[in-house]
Amino acid sequence: MHQTLEAALEINLLHANQDGADRNRAILDEWGIRCLNLMSSPGAGKTVLLEKTLAQLNGEINIAIIEGDMTTELDADRLRQYGVPVIAINTGRSCHLDSKMVAGGLHRLAHEYDPTVFDLAIVENVGNLVCPAEFEVGEHLKVALLSITEGEDKPLKYPLMFQEADCLLLTKMDLAPYLDIDINRIEANVRQMNPDVTILPVSAKTGQGLDAWVMWLRSGVRNRVSI
Amino acid sequence: MHQTLEAALEINLLHANQDGADRNRAILDEWGIRCLNLMSSPGAGKTVLLEKTLAQLNGEINIAIIEGDMTTELDADRLRQYGVPVIAINTGRSCHLDSKMVAGGLHRLAHEYDPTVFDLAIVENVGNLVCPAEFEVGEHLKVALLSITEGEDKPLKYPLMFQEADCLLLTKMDLAPYLDIDINRIEANVRQMNPDVTILPVSAKTGQGLDAWVMWLRSGVRNRVSI
Repeated sequence: MHQTLEAALEINLLHANQDGADRNRAILDEWGIRCLNLMSSPGAGKTVLLEKTLAQLNGEINIAIIEGDMTTELDADRLRQYGVPVIAINTGRSCHLDSKMVAGGLHRLAHEYDPTVFDLAIVENVGNLVCPAEFEVGEHLKVALLSITEGEDKPLKYPLMFQEADCLLLTKMDLAPYLDIDINRIEANVRQMNPDVTILPVSAKTGQGLDAWVMWLRSGVRNRVSI
Repeated sequence: MHQTLEAALEINLLHANQDGADRNRAILDEWGIRCLNLMSSPGAGKTVLLEKTLAQLNGEINIAIIEGDMTTELDADRLRQYGVPVIAINTGRSCHLDSKMVAGGLHRLAHEYDPTVFDLAIVENVGNLVCPAEFEVGEHLKVALLSITEGEDKPLKYPLMFQEADCLLLTKMDLAPYLDIDINRIEANVRQMNPDVTILPVSAKTGQGLDAWVMWLRSGVRNRVSI
């Protein structure tokens, strides 16, 4: 295949994905659901963050989860224990969710529940610091996690994820004393990519920063009303 | 685009990549170079492992590095300090190296050096636990790293990387006392995906396991002679 044909096909694919994302967002708006796309490297702590979030917010805010994984329902099963609807999507060989997969998830949500009762849909993406940032799924807000164990240089080396994020959680802060890293330098590197992003240092283990995260989330859901 | 056309194009792409990988391997064999493809999530410690490896082996084994990063030469610059040739490849938006990019790297290596003096070429892939496992670049051996901070379930959730690896390094072992994880369970999950893989627990910080790693590497290079 010629390089130009490859490039043209890729642009087509991204355009088709964007159209699908816009359609998903219109459906979510009609249902009155705010949607958040949660992204990070594998093992940065997306699922445990959701566990803590559901424990704190469920009941106050009606939350549905769309859970993306290449294979298994391990994470979906963890989250189902919190009594919320969890729509599991296995992406197979695909390294990210795309808008077509999430459209299928929204269809299943509407089939199994009255979707207008939900305030917030959280999409947990496949663990990957690269491709999920390129494929919108219909979200209103993007949240990225960076585990501080991943090192100071990641915002410089994987810029798109950090440029796209509305909120960046620095996770596993409890490990800071055992790592040769400078949290200020991580934050400076993030700001170099995205001066306006909200940066929240958190630890699911000690609870550090979780109140600030829940406050950010509440205000993100409330903003829906004013759109 | 229809799903079937998309699938056909993807199969085409993977076939073309495999052909390129076979060509790269033939060139490497002609030069007498053993090639290793180093893969992991972002921040699992590929570059620091290479630093430790070069400090221990350079001089004894002639090593060239092919350094893949989406952007920046941060890692390449770190490794150049060890006095080895480092061919930097920026993949742009691509989340993995492919055989065409590495062919370009080998071309540059042969242009700048006499390639027949090298015993070992180590390809450091883009930080991604998914796609690099699908795109061979011409390597003889695949080495995957899993930081124990990423959790016990990763081999089950990202199976291909673990199925493909000849050697799996469990990195950041020095953090084990501070994590709620069971190393035996990680190893059992890896073995479930790949019963025969060599598993080496290591810590770049304390030096744990680095001798075993270097021994594995030495024997991997020696095996070249008997092929």
